[in-house]
Amino acid sequence: MKNIFIGIAGGTASGKTTVSKKLHNGTKDFGSVSILRMDDYYKSFDELSLEERKKINYDHPNSYDVDLFIDHLKKLKAGQAINKPIYDFVNHKRSDEIEVIFPADVIIIEGIMLFAIPELLPFYDIKVFVDTPNDIRFIRRLQRDINERGRTLESVITQYLTTVRPMHMQFVEPSKIHADLIVPEGGENLVAMDVLITKIINILTNVK
Amino acid sequence: MKNIFIGIAGGTASGKTTVSKKLHNGTKDFGSVSILRMDDYYKSFDELSLEERKKINYDHPNSYDVDLFIDHLKKLKAGQAINKPIYDFVNHKRSDEIEVIFPADVIIIEGIMLFAIPELLPFYDIKVFVDTPNDIRFIRRLQRDINERGRTLESVITQYLTTVRPMHMQFVEPSKIHADLIVPEGGENLVAMDVLITKIINILTNVK
Repeated sequence: MKNIFIGIAGGTASGKTTVSKKLHNGTKDFGSVSILRMDDYYKSFDELSLEERKKINYDHPNSYDVDLFIDHLKKLKAGQAINKPIYDFVNHKRSDEIEVIFPADVIIIEGIMLFAIPELLPFYDIKVFVDTPNDIRFIRRLQRDINERGRTLESVITQYLTTVRPMHMQFVEPSKIHADLIVPEGGENLVAMDVLITKIINILTNVK
Repeated sequence: MKNIFIGIAGGTASGKTTVSKKLHNGTKDFGSVSILRMDDYYKSFDELSLEERKKINYDHPNSYDVDLFIDHLKKLKAGQAINKPIYDFVNHKRSDEIEVIFPADVIIIEGIMLFAIPELLPFYDIKVFVDTPNDIRFIRRLQRDINERGRTLESVITQYLTTVRPMHMQFVEPSKIHADLIVPEGGENLVAMDVLITKIINILTNVK
């Protein structure tokens, strides 16, 4: 196992998931490639009621179980499988399910805060920041939250202005400085996808 | 000949030349790779005196012979050699010398205005923007102009504030939107160099 970690960071609705999926789909026939999402490492706050949990600022780095995430990154780097938690976004808590993630030649790690938490930075071999303009990201998030999650326009705007945007400006945007490569516009950027897929296949097949 | 064009744009002293050289050095053993610099395509203004030529705003797209540059890009793309002009930066005019550039599998094209002139955009197969913070670029340019070109501190600052910076903000910075990949910090970004070198070697050797 080569255990190469590729971090894909970027703001909400920047296109991180599309990028991760395209990189995975374009390379999985050449070796073992997994995706690990930091969103599954939200803290559970079991002692709080659902109403209280809904009020938590999930756009702050402190809402993640960083200790568990680091423990899992270390295990994967050492070639050990992990029991990844699965987060329940409906009830805002960790579900009772787990998913076993096996070590792989390449692990694509995806998350808003990947480069915003200094202890995580040494783990990534390649740091990619998906950079999509703020207004485009807001529009995508608005459409997704209204169409797929049944949210109201007002609630999306309120959440965006009170937590999503300020936390983005405080933590996510400044973390771009740690990126090795910045990919404008996310997964629709076919040239960038091709360059990154070529690099991952090169890692998997060890041909240079 | 594959005739793949890789455009390397970015502001003055962003690290474009270091990036181009590192990409060239890292790949030239695998096939034919050339470097073409748009700086050699400055217009000559032979009808003006040296004093008049010194006053020209060389940071504006109009100071380039875009017609000749496009003609040469077309020829190289069609597999024909070109007689590239060589610009004389001391006398601010085109020199009497030319350099024959032969078609190549990969041509690394370098220049501040590569993505700022719309007619040029269709020629590039991969568009890379070297993105270095403005203060760092100014400091590099200051050191270079004082140490290597015998300029005074005041003359460097005056030129920077009157033409270099305004033209950068008007033409170069907005052209970043056309980039497929943004490389922070230029040639010292070893991870980005490795990813791009892997892609170029892949083009040269046709192995995916």
